[in-house]
Amino acid sequence: MEFRYPNGKIYKPKNVADTPYLKQKIYSNRGMTLEEDLNVTNSYYLEKDIAVIHKKPTPIQIVKVDYPKRSAAVIKEAYFKQASTTDYNGIYKGRYIDFEAKETKNKTSFPLQNFHEHQINHMSEILKQMGICFVILRFSTLDEMYLLDAKHLLSFWNRHLTGGRKSITKQEVEMYGHQLPIGYHPRIDYLKVIDQLYF
Amino acid sequence: MEFRYPNGKIYKPKNVADTPYLKQKIYSNRGMTLEEDLNVTNSYYLEKDIAVIHKKPTPIQIVKVDYPKRSAAVIKEAYFKQASTTDYNGIYKGRYIDFEAKETKNKTSFPLQNFHEHQINHMSEILKQMGICFVILRFSTLDEMYLLDAKHLLSFWNRHLTGGRKSITKQEVEMYGHQLPIGYHPRIDYLKVIDQLYF
Repeated sequence: MEFRYPNGKIYKPKNVADTPYLKQKIYSNRGMTLEEDLNVTNSYYLEKDIAVIHKKPTPIQIVKVDYPKRSAAVIKEAYFKQASTTDYNGIYKGRYIDFEAKETKNKTSFPLQNFHEHQINHMSEILKQMGICFVILRFSTLDEMYLLDAKHLLSFWNRHLTGGRKSITKQEVEMYGHQLPIGYHPRIDYLKVIDQLYF
Repeated sequence: MEFRYPNGKIYKPKNVADTPYLKQKIYSNRGMTLEEDLNVTNSYYLEKDIAVIHKKPTPIQIVKVDYPKRSAAVIKEAYFKQASTTDYNGIYKGRYIDFEAKETKNKTSFPLQNFHEHQINHMSEILKQMGICFVILRFSTLDEMYLLDAKHLLSFWNRHLTGGRKSITKQEVEMYGHQLPIGYHPRIDYLKVIDQLYF
């Protein structure tokens, strides 16, 4: 089904190429994933010339490709690879922005196993280069979301590496992070918090 | 075949997760593609803490995935998608870096059809956000490479849209671009030109 503007022009959502067709249909309903919420938010930022931030494609190792005559190449065998960076990056007011978004069903703490060592190393490298780097942590059962600067995540990671707990307590997330209100448009206005923290 | 350091330690190239296994084997030989040269260069920048710049994974539309018992998920049907951004981005000295690399066998001009409209729009958005955005153009037959700021590419693109030629002449590339010398380590030291142009 197509959507039309009042003038009859067909509505073409900008920059939702990464969103599978079926998922695009339920934008107006709830039950969206954190990734979908962020994609919609980033599309909003892009449309309004606020920021250019994209989710990187999922890295895939392609093993076998068929090239049928007169049609598109078909990948017949491929495997998911572990990402060597975070999922989102881009630019806002001239500054480099880099982040990862994760969710947990836990209510009292955020498990560090949600992050891979590669991603932690990447965040550390971004901080060295003076980038703005953070994670968005969602407690899905509580429907609460926090933005936590990567420097704090790194110190919790190091605490774990030196024998400490395998998670960040909810209290710590509240103390070091910044709660993200859930809005309508944009849905997760994380750049508002970035404005307060870095500009 | 494994490569070993003189002390017997196995050589593990850093950050070549995106490079297929077979291609990794010929690093020491010539005949590398522009993409491989840039991956090696970016790995060098990363190792030396100079910059964090990665190639984005190829965007793929996954249609069918099998989940065999006790082994990794296998993608059984998928298609290549057109990228909505450029291939490379990252951070250098706090600044956002964004570029695309293309090659031609032509000797006298660089065809604009090497770029997609999506990529051109993306570059225009990056410039609005004050990012450093450019293209690396390789004339493979001549083995010459140039860095051209995106603002020049955009004006050649607009010339084409308003009825002008479908390519950038070699002379124009020389006039508006900056030749990139081909070295050994790093192989394509494009950040040297970036230093001259933007810092």
